[in-house]
Amino acid sequence: MDTLQIISYTGVFVFAVTGVLKARTKRFDIFGAVVLAFVTAYGGGTIRDLLIGVRPVNWVNDNLALVIVVLSTIITFFFKLNTTLIKKSIFWVDAFGIGLFTIVGIQVALRAGISNGYALVMGIITATFGGLLADVLCNKVPSILKPGELYATACLLGGGLYLVMLNYHLQSETSMIISILVIASIRIFAIRKKLQLPII
Amino acid sequence: MDTLQIISYTGVFVFAVTGVLKARTKRFDIFGAVVLAFVTAYGGGTIRDLLIGVRPVNWVNDNLALVIVVLSTIITFFFKLNTTLIKKSIFWVDAFGIGLFTIVGIQVALRAGISNGYALVMGIITATFGGLLADVLCNKVPSILKPGELYATACLLGGGLYLVMLNYHLQSETSMIISILVIASIRIFAIRKKLQLPII
Amino acid sequence: MDTLQIISYTGVFVFAVTGVLKARTKRFDIFGAVVLAFVTAYGGGTIRDLLIGVRPVNWVNDNLALVIVVLSTIITFFFKLNTTLIKKSIFWVDAFGIGLFTIVGIQVALRAGISNGYALVMGIITATFGGLLADVLCNKVPSILKPGELYATACLLGGGLYLVMLNYHLQSETSMIISILVIASIRIFAIRKKLQLPII
Repeated sequence: MDTLQIISYTGVFVFAVTGVLKARTKRFDIFGAVVLAFVTAYGGGTIRDLLIGVRPVNWVNDNLALVIVVLSTIITFFFKLNTTLIKKSIFWVDAFGIGLFTIVGIQVALRAGISNGYALVMGIITATFGGLLADVLCNKVPSILKPGELYATACLLGGGLYLVMLNYHLQSETSMIISILVIASIRIFAIRKKLQLPII
Repeated sequence: MDTLQIISYTGVFVFAVTGVLKARTKRFDIFGAVVLAFVTAYGGGTIRDLLIGVRPVNWVNDNLALVIVVLSTIITFFFKLNTTLIKKSIFWVDAFGIGLFTIVGIQVALRAGISNGYALVMGIITATFGGLLADVLCNKVPSILKPGELYATACLLGGGLYLVMLNYHLQSETSMIISILVIASIRIFAIRKKLQLPII
Repeated sequence: MDTLQIISYTGVFVFAVTGVLKARTKRFDIFGAVVLAFVTAYGGGTIRDLLIGVRPVNWVNDNLALVIVVLSTIITFFFKLNTTLIKKSIFWVDAFGIGLFTIVGIQVALRAGISNGYALVMGIITATFGGLLADVLCNKVPSILKPGELYATACLLGGGLYLVMLNYHLQSETSMIISILVIASIRIFAIRKKLQLPII
């Protein structure tokens, strides 16, 4: 397993914990928590794969995916994970996770022969539609659609930057790291400054 | 670009505006409005393509689709588009758009080797499930499922007529125009007369 | 049509009636009821097929599927089907239907080359995600995610048992019947004893 995979599964773990915490606010049972964890972590990539025609979708047959999601549920079940310190750590890892998911989504789309514009769309979907699906399952309006956190905007700008850098033949790994840092920075800066998109 | 495509993209534009207006009632931000516009315009065709196995789904790599959806959001953002005249125009174009989407959906399904009965189902899905998905994202019961407008019934009757005409080898374009007119007429007539299906 | 298919379509019919009854509580119209019936009966298998890449999804071109779903709606419309006797019958057939859907889902997944662990996931999805989708369309939190009935747990245990028996080369039909009985028994026992999973 290389560095990228370790980072990637760390992102999955944090996304999954976010899903479990969402399930807790709705008083779901343990099965419901596993479903919400899985949907939060893998829902975006699943929608991307369905739309561009990758089959089976990426996580099918990846046993580690299942293990990490179940583990995230068990850990969140036994340790309450509601302390300020842990919430802060989750926030930080989540910001970088979104960056990573955006770039990985773009890469998967490009490899499937998708044009630059739609690869960017697929990157945003990969990073944000897991949370959207989880919100739908919680019977609430997806928070990504409402003013609040420049979540998708960060993915759009950082993902766009990544495509520009690729276009100028910058080294792929360097481009990736820069773009992820940009996405995480925009997201963190936007929350600090309470920036948000205008209401339609 | 031929006449059919121009009509088709006009339909997409109007469906997208409908989505943006729905986003406005929920006070979504601009990103949320683009998502709702896209889902309203392309959601039905996307579900159809996924079910029958067309991949990637129809709009992937169609840059004009993205442009029209973003444009519909920007226009609706700057011009309030809430006047009675504009709402009336939207209603009329929407009625014909539903007709067009039904027939195009049937054609796509038939071309993919789907039987007549399910091609009709796919036509109805194409015309109506974009709005259904948008309603789900707005956290409301999809209006298409509740008594109100003979929306799906119009698609069913007009789409069925189209299949009968195809079966009798009528000229395809004539059949298409007649069926679209029938769907739009039933829909408009039903609203005028407040016709609705019985509650289950 | 063999015994398995007759049992299978009986399960579909009962699942569909469950969907129609759900539509009734929401005062949907007849079209809405057909949609809910179809989604309840075939939604789980549809999600499974999309995830593992079977295309078109299983019910496309199966005219009997459409006939049974429409029939279930019409019958539920004319006969109120709300008597205690009928509800009890539905409950019993539903318990066995869930067992059957789980095992069939596992078989479809294994045939598509899916690993044991994910075949079990696909079995659970087949049995439970139709009801989940129907709940989403009714704008309520999916009951499968909340403490209540050991629904998914029964599928997990019975499906796991099926995979173990397959692994020990037990005769496939015997394994199938035993597993379905186990799933139905756990479900019925859990409801009698009011067993439920802990809240997350």
